Formats: sequence, structure tokens, C-alpha cells
Amino acid sequence: MNAHDLDRIAHIIAERVKARVAGLSDEDRMRFGGGWNTNVTRTSPERVLGTAKGSRDLARMIDHTLLKPEATREEVEALCEEARKHHFATVCLNSSWIPLAARLLQGSDVLPIAVVGFPLGAALPEAKAYEAQEAIRHGAREIDTVLPIGALKSGDYRTVVDDLRAVVEAARPLKVKVILETSKLTDEEKVAACVLAKVAGAAFVKTSTGFGGGGATVEDVALMRRVVGRDMEVKASGGVRTLDDARKLIAAGADRIGASASVAIVTGGAAQGGY
Amino acid sequence: MNAHDLDRIAHIIAERVKARVAGLSDEDRMRFGGGWNTNVTRTSPERVLGTAKGSRDLARMIDHTLLKPEATREEVEALCEEARKHHFATVCLNSSWIPLAARLLQGSDVLPIAVVGFPLGAALPEAKAYEAQEAIRHGAREIDTVLPIGALKSGDYRTVVDDLRAVVEAARPLKVKVILETSKLTDEEKVAACVLAKVAGAAFVKTSTGFGGGGATVEDVALMRRVVGRDMEVKASGGVRTLDDARKLIAAGADRIGASASVAIVTGGAAQGGY
Repeated sequence: MNAHDLDRIAHIIAERVKARVAGLSDEDRMRFGGGWNTNVTRTSPERVLGTAKGSRDLARMIDHTLLKPEATREEVEALCEEARKHHFATVCLNSSWIPLAARLLQGSDVLPIAVVGFPLGAALPEAKAYEAQEAIRHGAREIDTVLPIGALKSGDYRTVVDDLRAVVEAARPLKVKVILETSKLTDEEKVAACVLAKVAGAAFVKTSTGFGGGGATVEDVALMRRVVGRDMEVKASGGVRTLDDARKLIAAGADRIGASASVAIVTGGAAQGGY
Repeated sequence: MNAHDLDRIAHIIAERVKARVAGLSDEDRMRFGGGWNTNVTRTSPERVLGTAKGSRDLARMIDHTLLKPEATREEVEALCEEARKHHFATVCLNSSWIPLAARLLQGSDVLPIAVVGFPLGAALPEAKAYEAQEAIRHGAREIDTVLPIGALKSGDYRTVVDDLRAVVEAARPLKVKVILETSKLTDEEKVAACVLAKVAGAAFVKTSTGFGGGGATVEDVALMRRVVGRDMEVKASGGVRTLDDARKLIAAGADRIGASASVAIVTGGAAQGGY
């Protein structure tokens, strides 16, 4: 598939999305969320959120996250301890903390995730791929990479696909999530980004880095879910602080939640700090 | 030199700095700025800032900078064009833009700089080193890397030196700047960071990424100048928007200014946008 084909596909899909969402209320968008792919099968939000068993199911959907640059060894250790205790799906860390996290999580059901090319997505593709490869060598079991936003906005779709594919190839067979940084994109750019992530073979599209202003919204998650269909997953991240936030994003189509307030979300306590 | 030695040196130097700056006014600090190394030789601020010829000298101290993730190809092209026209020292870009910038700046007196591990400084050291190496292969002629802030705050000085040294080795013989992200550090941590950058063989210490809140201050530049002495350079970056800002930072000890408002600074026009 060449750059021209990608361009054409992105355009067609953007037109279809615009036609579908034009004039709909937020509630309608939610109601019609599954329309694009009528055979989407997802965990029922009621099962995840309704019962005591539900809080354990919810924990298994959460990437327990600590990405601020000033995070200390002690804070990373505490994050891993919380993740073990509450059985979160993963811990999500900058790649330099992966060797420590992999040691601390050995024998647990929690996977270490490394972010790469984070949070700007503007590093050389080979540098992102190498960071993914080295993080995996040190124990990372999923990779969250950032889309090259400037290339997308320049219409250089081939550059975007090559960038994402380099990381997907380096991480194979592990899952790669592509962070769109939705706060910086128009709806059409969000659609194009989802299409390109799918073409590149990523496992997930993800809303936000938590560093770019804005965060996960119900509307963006529903849009991303419609565009990627049932054979990709959607991660909602950035500003998710309460059980109610998580509940709404899961109802809109999120398979995974990225949060630093994960303990508060599963225990009903008050959230501390930012994403 | 082992971690214990580094620890001791950082402590001794921090104590000396605290003793020197305690109770001094900002003006006194400026006046005593050269005291630590009495034989510092620097371009006279009057020569740089006083005359028409001065504006050309000033341009040669400026890294013309565009680091926002949504920067497009067109914006990068405009940046390089401005840098050629005004004879800025360099353009400072995310590494994915280096191949384009190197082509556009061929035959000019403007060098391409790549930032690496930017802006969090929390990538694996080998990933930062590889990004530096690849950026240089694509035409970068200086490297601006970010100190691993969390390791510094954890007191893991050996980790900090190893991280910085990996980038310095990968870039040799080109100059490496170490960004401290001063807004996130205490004065003692700033001193320790300068010492570690010097031990690692970096050419510059630099105040800020522009993404971490805060930016270059006269106090921080004067402190950094005192600690690193005359055989390292100091770059002031983050929030430098006017000729007056630049003038004060140079007077405080800056050898290089990082700015996106560079054209406004050298022409006296109004600054647009952030760093």
C-alpha cells in the first residue's frame, strides 16, 4: 500500500465518520457507538463495574501509571507494590525504570509496560524501535509508543506508518499501543491516526500521554472504537481519576484504562496527584 | 571515581555554594558570579548586545528552537530558512526532523542540534545513546540530552553519570548539552547535576526543556556558571522571549540562548508562541 492509497483511505473514512457524527448529540453518539462494527464483542461494563468481583475485573483493565520525570526509585517501588496488591494489569513506566520493575514484579500477574518516544513522538523511528527492543530485553511486556504528530499533520502518512511499523516489528509478538495525543488532533486527524495505527499492525490505540494537555474523553473513545473495529483494543488515558470516569470510558468502548489514581479508582478512595 | 566519591563531592560543593549564596541579594550574586572561577573568560555582554554588529554576534549565540510535537514539515522548513537568514548558531529540533534540517542547512553556517531522551530524560541510557548516534548519522552536529531527574533525586549519582556518559561517548567528538530541568530541582540538586554533567564530560549545562514548567532564570544561570567554571558552557533556555531576557541571561553567564522567539530577539519585534 503506498502513500497515495493511505491518503485515499484516510479521506474516505474521515468522510464516513463526519457523515455519521454530524448533528448527533453526545448521547446519540454513545448509543450509535457500536454501529460501525456491529459485531464488536466486549466485556459488559455491568460485569466489570457492578459487583465486588467487578472491582477485581476492573483492576485487570488498569495500567497503573507513573510517568513524571522526577519519579524516584522509591515511588517506582511503591507503584509496583500497589500493582501486585490490587492485581492491576500492568505498570506503565518510562523505559529506564523497566529493569527495576521487571525484578519487582517477577512471579506476579502484573506486566511491565514501557513507553517509548515519549511523550512527544518526535524521535527518529529507529530510535523508538531500539528503545522498544531494549525495554523488552530488560523485561517490558507491552510497549506504548507515541504517534509522530507533526508527520500526521503534514499529511506524511507513509512516514507515520513507517514510524509505527518500526516499533511494532521491534516489539513483535508483544502488543504495541499507539498514543494519538487526541488533545492536539482534529476529529479527522484522529480518524486518520486510528487507520494508520491499524495498517501498521498495532494492537491498541490510546488517547493521551498525560503531558499534552487534555485527556481521555468519552467522545474520543467512542470515535476510536468505531474506527478501529473489534480487532483492535482502545486505551483511555489522561485525567482518569475516579471510578465514575473509568465507568464512562469503559461504557464508551475502552478496553484498558491508564491512570495514576488506580488505587482510588478500585477502592473508591480519593485520587492523589495527576496522571 | 565511585558513587561514594561522587556523593561526597556533590555534598562538599553544595555546602560551598550554600555558604556563598546565603544572604546575598540577586545583584550581589550577579556581581560575585565570577568568583568561584576567577579566570572565567567570556564574550563581553556589551560587545554582544550594544551595537548593530552586536545583533549578529547575538544571533551566533542563539539556538533557534522548535520542539513542540505538533510541529509540521512546513514549520521546520520555515525555522531553517530563518536560521540561515539571521545566522543563528543552530536549529534545535526533535531527532526525527534532523534528516530534513541537515539537507536544508547544507552549505550554511547553521548547525542542526538534536534533542535526545527529550523532554523527560527517563528513557533507558542505551536508548538515549542510540538516538544520539543515529541523529548524528543523519546530520546532527550537537546533542542536547536530558538528565535522568528521578535518578538524581534518588541519590543514584552513579546512574546519572553512566546515563550522561553513554550519550557523551556516542556523540564524541561533538558537543553534548545536559538539560537539568531546573524548575524541578532544589538548589542543591542543581549543583549536584552540574557536577555530574562535568564528571561525565559534557560540554554544556542547560537550564530547561521548555516542557517542565518554569524556564531560565538569572539566578540559575549564575549558579550553574559558578559551579561548572570556565571550561564548560552554559545554555539558558525556556521562556526567553525578548532581547531584554537574553541580555540579562548573558550577563548572568549564559554562552548560548535557546529560544523560539529568536527572530524577535535579534530584530526587536514581538515574540510569537512559546519556547
